Amino acid sequence: MSNGKLYGVGVGPGAPDLMTLRSVQVLNSVDVIAAPLGNKFTKSVAWGIAEPNIEENPDQEQLFLSFPMTKNPKILKPAWEIALNEIGERLTAGKSVAFIAQGDPLFFSTFTYMMDEIAVRLPEVEIEVLPAVSSFTAVPSAIKATIADGQERVAIVPASYGLETLPEIFRLFDTTLLMKVGSIMPELVEILEKENLLDKAVYISKATMEDETIIFDLKSIKNDKCDYFSMVMVKKSERSGVLAGNS
Amino acid sequence: MSNGKLYGVGVGPGAPDLMTLRSVQVLNSVDVIAAPLGNKFTKSVAWGIAEPNIEENPDQEQLFLSFPMTKNPKILKPAWEIALNEIGERLTAGKSVAFIAQGDPLFFSTFTYMMDEIAVRLPEVEIEVLPAVSSFTAVPSAIKATIADGQERVAIVPASYGLETLPEIFRLFDTTLLMKVGSIMPELVEILEKENLLDKAVYISKATMEDETIIFDLKSIKNDKCDYFSMVMVKKSERSGVLAGNS
Repeated sequence: MSNGKLYGVGVGPGAPDLMTLRSVQVLNSVDVIAAPLGNKFTKSVAWGIAEPNIEENPDQEQLFLSFPMTKNPKILKPAWEIALNEIGERLTAGKSVAFIAQGDPLFFSTFTYMMDEIAVRLPEVEIEVLPAVSSFTAVPSAIKATIADGQERVAIVPASYGLETLPEIFRLFDTTLLMKVGSIMPELVEILEKENLLDKAVYISKATMEDETIIFDLKSIKNDKCDYFSMVMVKKSERSGVLAGNS
Repeated sequence: MSNGKLYGVGVGPGAPDLMTLRSVQVLNSVDVIAAPLGNKFTKSVAWGIAEPNIEENPDQEQLFLSFPMTKNPKILKPAWEIALNEIGERLTAGKSVAFIAQGDPLFFSTFTYMMDEIAVRLPEVEIEVLPAVSSFTAVPSAIKATIADGQERVAIVPASYGLETLPEIFRLFDTTLLMKVGSIMPELVEILEKENLLDKAVYISKATMEDETIIFDLKSIKNDKCDYFSMVMVKKSERSGVLAGNS
């Protein structure tokens, strides 16, 4: 029997109708949809986005896999082993598997590790990646701010790694998108204040989702524990005028 | 009469089925679809992507507007005046207008300038931006290379502005995406060679389109005049293994 194909399917930033036609078509044609869970007790965010676009099909399996949000290898490794075995079993049984990912599957996504591991363990399995609207373009859409015009530079930085190099990055780039700012808001607000960029920054969580939150006064949330799926966009230029009018 | 609404509609990187459900829905409901042309003699790339998803509708207008690819204000300004007047006329007549853009409308797109100008000239006009798959996520999908895992940093740089700061950017970032590399390949190849990054770079033009081109040996095209819609991705890490296997 030949192997099934593995698809990495991006479901976009949050609103179900921001999925692509291709992602919808693939999710309605595969044998198995695999969805990541942060832990046993939460729903899958990616599944919640995809579900309204998936037709009833009793022959299709929904496979929920746990990927704990921790850096502790003693918890991470066994969870990954289970997930890889579950997916690998189905692929070698000839079933097609779509692994869904919020945003784009190759951008800060669990799928990037999944793809690499499957490529090593089952090198004969064909892998196809379906690009999607990344959260980083949805956020500027929410606040109608240009990310970059044709002459500008953009930096995308996971905020919790290397805060000390932010001043250098702010100097080199017109727009900086800080991802996953949830736990480091106090330090970040201090850096932005020192760099005189506090009024050029905006906080957005759950962009395009029903509970989307946009905050222009970052000081007001400095000491809050913010949402994991949140970002801060810092745009130095005044050109667009849209951000400037709201700060 | 109340004003019509202006939509900035991203049509994605090239493949028609990488459009979002929302973009398709909006394009099939507006009174006018405005599409940018590089010059009088070429077809609109964005229109070519959208067209297969647009239903026949004799009441819908297709408005093609010329935006010359030049930095010369004597050519640019009159073209922009015409485009803004054509769109403004329809909006003030109560018609809804969708301005389509290849990729995402707020990312290196003509729409960013359009949005800002309409906001100044017709401040009462409502503007809605529909995010889309940006070319920058489509490219890694084409070569199945991770853009960034959760700890990595990404720089997106229009290649023709500030080549001299590239070594500093390569040092600070795990992945660098150089946009619009068409005219500066000789200089870029030299810099990559000097920085010992030539085998970490890949050239992609027209990602996800039928005539998509992927080139891993950048030296082989060093002296070519390359496509305007082309990019080079430089990824320092070896983690993914996918890029490394092809270089």
